[in-house]
Amino acid sequence: VVELGIGDDMAVLKSPDDQLLITTDLLLEGVHFDLTAATLEQVGYKAMACSLSDCAAMASLPLAAVVSVSLPQSMSMTDAHQLHTGLQKTAQQYNCPLVGGDTNSWPQSLTVNIAMLSRPAGITPVRRSTARPDDFIFVTGSLGGSLTGKHLTFTPRVHEARQLASNLQLHAMIDISDGLSQDLHHICIASNVSAILEPDTIPISLAAQTSPDPLHSTLTDGEDYELLFTLAPDQLPALTELQNQLDVPLTRIGRLIEPDKTPALFLQQKDQTLKPLIPKGYQHFHD
Amino acid sequence: VVELGIGDDMAVLKSPDDQLLITTDLLLEGVHFDLTAATLEQVGYKAMACSLSDCAAMASLPLAAVVSVSLPQSMSMTDAHQLHTGLQKTAQQYNCPLVGGDTNSWPQSLTVNIAMLSRPAGITPVRRSTARPDDFIFVTGSLGGSLTGKHLTFTPRVHEARQLASNLQLHAMIDISDGLSQDLHHICIASNVSAILEPDTIPISLAAQTSPDPLHSTLTDGEDYELLFTLAPDQLPALTELQNQLDVPLTRIGRLIEPDKTPALFLQQKDQTLKPLIPKGYQHFHD
Repeated sequence: VVELGIGDDMAVLKSPDDQLLITTDLLLEGVHFDLTAATLEQVGYKAMACSLSDCAAMASLPLAAVVSVSLPQSMSMTDAHQLHTGLQKTAQQYNCPLVGGDTNSWPQSLTVNIAMLSRPAGITPVRRSTARPDDFIFVTGSLGGSLTGKHLTFTPRVHEARQLASNLQLHAMIDISDGLSQDLHHICIASNVSAILEPDTIPISLAAQTSPDPLHSTLTDGEDYELLFTLAPDQLPALTELQNQLDVPLTRIGRLIEPDKTPALFLQQKDQTLKPLIPKGYQHFHD
Repeated sequence: VVELGIGDDMAVLKSPDDQLLITTDLLLEGVHFDLTAATLEQVGYKAMACSLSDCAAMASLPLAAVVSVSLPQSMSMTDAHQLHTGLQKTAQQYNCPLVGGDTNSWPQSLTVNIAMLSRPAGITPVRRSTARPDDFIFVTGSLGGSLTGKHLTFTPRVHEARQLASNLQLHAMIDISDGLSQDLHHICIASNVSAILEPDTIPISLAAQTSPDPLHSTLTDGEDYELLFTLAPDQLPALTELQNQLDVPLTRIGRLIEPDKTPALFLQQKDQTLKPLIPKGYQHFHD
């Protein structure tokens, strides 16, 4: 697919489909990773994997990526090489070649930006805005506690998303980067629906099970990079069948309803009453 | 061309051509701009214009862009808005919509990354690697002294590049970002040719005319964002005709020759002898 790679003013790609998808993700040292806890190869992995997770969230197939890096002047060429190794290995693993780059040196911290292209490859991109009342809400994998390590080692659900979208009529999908409550809220706002979560059903990761408040952790930690998707109840039999072919568990955690004026989230209590849930997660801006 | 813009996990674009081009460019505060000398709107302009200049260097037509920003925590929403205004105005001016973004806040300096897509739109992308011996070397506009202001206000030569490439058989093209000598050297290396520059013919910008060494300034200052292109001598009549339709001057500054072992640059002296020219310009890495 690459007609002209790194080394000219721009890379030239074959564009196999009529449609094309693009995303950009910036990782900042001290915000998205900590070089006392992560190797540079892990940072390279995470940078690619975050964008691959965006491709997954649209059920699209990764096509190519470009990377921009600001290297601290204190970093050696060996350091830069390790970062590159992490990027390159992941690019190969997901068949998403790095076709361009811009590397700069400066006296401040490491930043890594990935812009990634993907293509529908036969599957209509799954949006956030097309969820419907009465949909069931599902997640892949388990949630919470990502900071203890998973935020560096998660598997972007590219394969699973393609499997889900080609076998089921998904109404909406997003990857959980900000946190379950906040990303579910994004779907609710975009689709004008409200959501009821059943707390006992939310799959809690091992890392979150030892946290002071495991449920809170699953709702707000973020950086799970699992898929959150909604579908009509009549898709359940097909989903059950598909589950056997997937290595990752699919768990129903709630349902969507018509909004009462504005989209909102609720936790269903043991007595079946609904308790409002304020969406919370990692926020870069506080108004 | 935009089927789904900002607000989902990825933007969805119509892909009008079989080919697609992509570039990524990172601007760092203190390296590429200085907020005591540039407004945030100018920074937004420069970020877009650098990538637009890459589109021009391939004679391609800008299609869409995504932007990643790290905002210093000290910046206000008004500041962020000014940056956005600069980006957005330029996007509109060049019909290159911003379709996605990632904005983060951190305790360090401002960084702005643009990844830009473009398309051939009927013109084969012009590479660096296809220059030939005996080609004439041309530049648009005038060179040198960009730091006195032009690096914030230059016009990306998108229109001129399309005019040149559709009316002439260009062999190679690049935009001058690192500096004439270094970018010419990039073409020489990629094409395996050497180059002879005729110093008296190099157009010196007004800003560089008052510098201590105007010729040196044109050769090494960089950030001119003018086009450097090569073509066979038989294209001269067509070029002369085209010049009348362009607002920017086209100037012949030298010629390419077969390399003697390795590609090299030379300055032609008044007595016609050749003096080796070491390519020099802005370099982020010094081995």
